[in-house]
Amino acid sequence: MSTNAIHPVILCGGSGTRLWPRSRRSAPKPFIPLVGERTLFRAAVERASDPQVFGAPVIVAGAQHVPLIEAQLPDGTGARIVVEPAAKNTAPAIALAAAVLDPDAVMLVCPSDHYIADDAGFVAAARKAAKLAKDDWLVAIGIAPDGPETGYGYIKLGEPLEGGHKVARFVEKPDLERAQGFLAEGGYAWNGGIFAFRAGALLAELAQHRPAMAEAVRNAAAKGVTEGEKFHPAADVFAGIEGDSIDYAVMENTGRAAVVEASMGWSDIGNWAALQDALSGDDAGNHAVGPAEFKDARRVLAISDGPRISVVGLEDVCVVVDGNEVLVTTREGAQLVGKLKGPAEG
Amino acid sequence: MSTNAIHPVILCGGSGTRLWPRSRRSAPKPFIPLVGERTLFRAAVERASDPQVFGAPVIVAGAQHVPLIEAQLPDGTGARIVVEPAAKNTAPAIALAAAVLDPDAVMLVCPSDHYIADDAGFVAAARKAAKLAKDDWLVAIGIAPDGPETGYGYIKLGEPLEGGHKVARFVEKPDLERAQGFLAEGGYAWNGGIFAFRAGALLAELAQHRPAMAEAVRNAAAKGVTEGEKFHPAADVFAGIEGDSIDYAVMENTGRAAVVEASMGWSDIGNWAALQDALSGDDAGNHAVGPAEFKDARRVLAISDGPRISVVGLEDVCVVVDGNEVLVTTREGAQLVGKLKGPAEG
Repeated sequence: MSTNAIHPVILCGGSGTRLWPRSRRSAPKPFIPLVGERTLFRAAVERASDPQVFGAPVIVAGAQHVPLIEAQLPDGTGARIVVEPAAKNTAPAIALAAAVLDPDAVMLVCPSDHYIADDAGFVAAARKAAKLAKDDWLVAIGIAPDGPETGYGYIKLGEPLEGGHKVARFVEKPDLERAQGFLAEGGYAWNGGIFAFRAGALLAELAQHRPAMAEAVRNAAAKGVTEGEKFHPAADVFAGIEGDSIDYAVMENTGRAAVVEASMGWSDIGNWAALQDALSGDDAGNHAVGPAEFKDARRVLAISDGPRISVVGLEDVCVVVDGNEVLVTTREGAQLVGKLKGPAEG
Repeated sequence: MSTNAIHPVILCGGSGTRLWPRSRRSAPKPFIPLVGERTLFRAAVERASDPQVFGAPVIVAGAQHVPLIEAQLPDGTGARIVVEPAAKNTAPAIALAAAVLDPDAVMLVCPSDHYIADDAGFVAAARKAAKLAKDDWLVAIGIAPDGPETGYGYIKLGEPLEGGHKVARFVEKPDLERAQGFLAEGGYAWNGGIFAFRAGALLAELAQHRPAMAEAVRNAAAKGVTEGEKFHPAADVFAGIEGDSIDYAVMENTGRAAVVEASMGWSDIGNWAALQDALSGDDAGNHAVGPAEFKDARRVLAISDGPRISVVGLEDVCVVVDGNEVLVTTREGAQLVGKLKGPAEG
């Protein structure tokens, strides 16, 4: 391993309820194959596994998902698993990972439930971001927008840096009109939740902007217990933390936020419509996973774990059959799937 | 039993492929509960069971459906089952039933796979039709049309008779413009496939217009074998019959065709959209049989034999889950369901 190695920090906290019924509490979104044969988690680990570039990953997850992680981790990664005693959003999770790394190590924070088509594009962006991180920039990898999406936060690019830009400002999820304005204006990127930090720099910024959280994380880590490749922070200390996102806790407050633009076929696969966009359809735009027949149907996604799905006359619809659940949703309705009874029941 | 008894002749030949996957070869449309708890077959028998009006029914069906019929027949009907050696359309089936009845018996031909909401309206129409049939009219019970349906044949009413009219002419399934014209003009009824004949009169008309068929039916019946309540016409003779509908073979050729109008909440439940029309929905027009949840959905029919169906954002759609098959169709597409691979596979 090079001393310049980038340590992937894979966050496994998402519930993925909008991908119910495939995504369930017992096997949430990162741990099910959604695009191709690989799970998104496994793809996230393998994407950042070139030993010329990357060091051993740190995986942050809840205890209930550790068996899935152990089953899906490739051999020989040297991964450490930080077992979160409670879900406290991304800032404490990332800070815990920073606490188990050398302060001078560069960490690359990666959600485990996103899809990236172009792994080489990802690695190139990661290297540029790591270079800035070594100089104590807190670096977001910004996704080059390919449409006026209203489901993502935006980053406005500021003064140029080597390989990137300073962040002029972070913008909350905009409405359609604003999003169209950003695209017309140019100089904006989507915030995909991928970040590069020097571990010590991240902890120092956290101590400045969220001192109580930083202190609690430090204590939880100091009193933690190592068990093989697993690290268990002290549960009682961690439980008292007020959860917050890394964006709110650090990125929007630091004076050293930077952004590196990347075009790498990224999708957060935030719902069934987003998954449909990440998959290629046939001539009529239909895509089937499992047995299916389409008649007079266009742009239909049919996913089944067994039963045959027959679709007649529909357009722009997703049909998902999983165990004892059948979901039929319009692309527009896909945002509401997480609010059905099923996801709450697990 | 009154000597004036009307003998129901229940035809069980339909395959109901457009109601796949609930309707299968092994348990086709008449023998599955579609509206409420009763099967359409059982409802057809019970609708014509008042001993003040009706005599013992004659049921005509293929051998493969006899076990279903025996299981679903109410006790004490005195029914005879004519087991068709081959499917030859309605004219031979009806003629076989006529052959096992007294020539002076009035027979009331009823499809087993239609839905009738108003049984009293049905009985009233049957009595009027039987009265005309005794005078050797060949009587169609015409359904008072409640819309410009293009899926049914129409009957134009001619000169008045007691309780009905002569048939001016039969009209094949019209296009929408013609159907709208019929409704605007008035004096038309749908041909619902319900007929009253004196058995001897029907056989005499058949002998005149389809002499070969009449002769073959006579021979098949003469050489037939009785086995309990079942009657097996001679298979070799029956196999040689050229199949035809009672409409083509007799009704469109006879000079004694009559029609009795009936308004009785009739539907042929020809496809999932027609079933949806026969069922009442909730405030949003949604109707569920089995577990279902609707969100931002309107006029959706969800039918499941077990799994929960969750529908988001859709309008005017039918979702049917049955065993290893899931069907999702628009109301318009419902006509095409019979052309899917599933129905052909059984």
